[in-house]
Amino acid sequence: MATSTSKFRRAVIAGVGLMGGSLGQALKSRELAEEVVGWGRNQGRLDEAVGRGAVDIGTRDRVRALDGADLLVFATPGSVTLSLAREWMPELPAGCLVTDLVSVKGKLVETLTKLTPPRASYVSSHPLCGSDRTGVAAARPDLYRNQLCLLTPVPATRKTAIGRIQKLWQNLGMTVVALAPGRHDRVVAAVSHLPHLVAAALVNRIGEERLLRFGGTGLKDTTRIAGADPGLWAEIMGENRKEILAQLDEFIKTLVSARKRLDSNHRAEIGQWLRQAAVRRKKLAP
Amino acid sequence: MATSTSKFRRAVIAGVGLMGGSLGQALKSRELAEEVVGWGRNQGRLDEAVGRGAVDIGTRDRVRALDGADLLVFATPGSVTLSLAREWMPELPAGCLVTDLVSVKGKLVETLTKLTPPRASYVSSHPLCGSDRTGVAAARPDLYRNQLCLLTPVPATRKTAIGRIQKLWQNLGMTVVALAPGRHDRVVAAVSHLPHLVAAALVNRIGEERLLRFGGTGLKDTTRIAGADPGLWAEIMGENRKEILAQLDEFIKTLVSARKRLDSNHRAEIGQWLRQAAVRRKKLAP
Repeated sequence: MATSTSKFRRAVIAGVGLMGGSLGQALKSRELAEEVVGWGRNQGRLDEAVGRGAVDIGTRDRVRALDGADLLVFATPGSVTLSLAREWMPELPAGCLVTDLVSVKGKLVETLTKLTPPRASYVSSHPLCGSDRTGVAAARPDLYRNQLCLLTPVPATRKTAIGRIQKLWQNLGMTVVALAPGRHDRVVAAVSHLPHLVAAALVNRIGEERLLRFGGTGLKDTTRIAGADPGLWAEIMGENRKEILAQLDEFIKTLVSARKRLDSNHRAEIGQWLRQAAVRRKKLAP
Repeated sequence: MATSTSKFRRAVIAGVGLMGGSLGQALKSRELAEEVVGWGRNQGRLDEAVGRGAVDIGTRDRVRALDGADLLVFATPGSVTLSLAREWMPELPAGCLVTDLVSVKGKLVETLTKLTPPRASYVSSHPLCGSDRTGVAAARPDLYRNQLCLLTPVPATRKTAIGRIQKLWQNLGMTVVALAPGRHDRVVAAVSHLPHLVAAALVNRIGEERLLRFGGTGLKDTTRIAGADPGLWAEIMGENRKEILAQLDEFIKTLVSARKRLDSNHRAEIGQWLRQAAVRRKKLAP
């Protein structure tokens, strides 16, 4: 049970897919909100979210959703979050804390910060626990547990709001790290967007050769994220294009240098390079 | 329970690490061998293999191990398998069926085929169920289940021996496909060795930037295999160098073409490319 200061009265989650649905389940199972309201455009999906214990109420009515809300989470893709924020921000109740889960922060945080009325607070979040699965059917209350959440406050962000959002994610079992939005976008280009692009390139390359049917556990792990929602990822790639291009250029250099090492057949050098990777990889969780 | 024709009297596994240990556990739990003998150089590890139910007896004595054996599996790296085969093949009991689990086949299959005495049979196997984990402590009886096993018979290989080895792997729940050794080496360069090299390159690139601590589930999946035994993998990369170089060149071309697509910012094209990857990836098991 959370302490009263970190508990919300009415949490509103806009978008009840994998991320929003799992958040609702986690808030409810950990009793971090008295009431969880799901907002969406499709009543069938909202009903499914209620059925799966992700939200107490599912509504397509923004005004009804926001009535008495002290937490609003946009669990929607970047473009949707931007257009929702233009409508929702002017109507926030006093004291409402707002966050989003969008993967690219630069322009988004700038715009949403400007749109936030003085009676409310906005702190942008990026929980790094995406999946190749989508939809509330894949939601699970422990999706966020033991994962990393990046916060991207700006100078205008209220310190008390940062503290409350940090506490929210910590209460879900997350490790929270704050980064400036620009730094965040460089970091996720390296640790998330580049690996996604590389996984997609592997699948497409091996698929062209019609060899995917020979793939074992290694290939399955390495390419799992390439199965994620391509529409969402095309948007992310577009939004963070410049940072991803920079990371991709460096990665191609790394491959070209590995190629040279392999071509010269210096097994000790190849072994050393693989050993360095193995030692580094072992430091990540399995 | 297997039929009597596919059951072995005395199965000898040379090397009781992850692969050998899991094989022993599977043979025992499925009652596919009356007796499973583990051979190795380290008595402590052999005792551990006995303790973990991977083998009935663990011995460092080759002659004792081979006495009455009707199945011999080299579950050792390629270089070790080659040197063991030179010693063991001349001493095989009549009717003994021999296989190995080595990842690169060309030269190995040629050499072991020549070393096989007429009273025995040799069919090379490659079960595609490696892992980033090593040692008998990580062994599990279902490691092979629902995975793919490639056989690489040559014209000299006896048809009855191919049938028996195929049945062995099928009895462990594997799907078995036969490929010529050269074709095998091209296929695994694409579906296994290239992804391994790419995973190692990702870890080393992101590690150089000291950003690995920001990795989420996507990065963990994508780079898991880079944690595998670097010594074993350096040997594999060296043995299959030419095929891997060819695959790497094509992969770099794929990345350069993806880079162009991203640079020109044609979101529809990027989306189409990601969608193709997602559709292809969904056809693989999770």
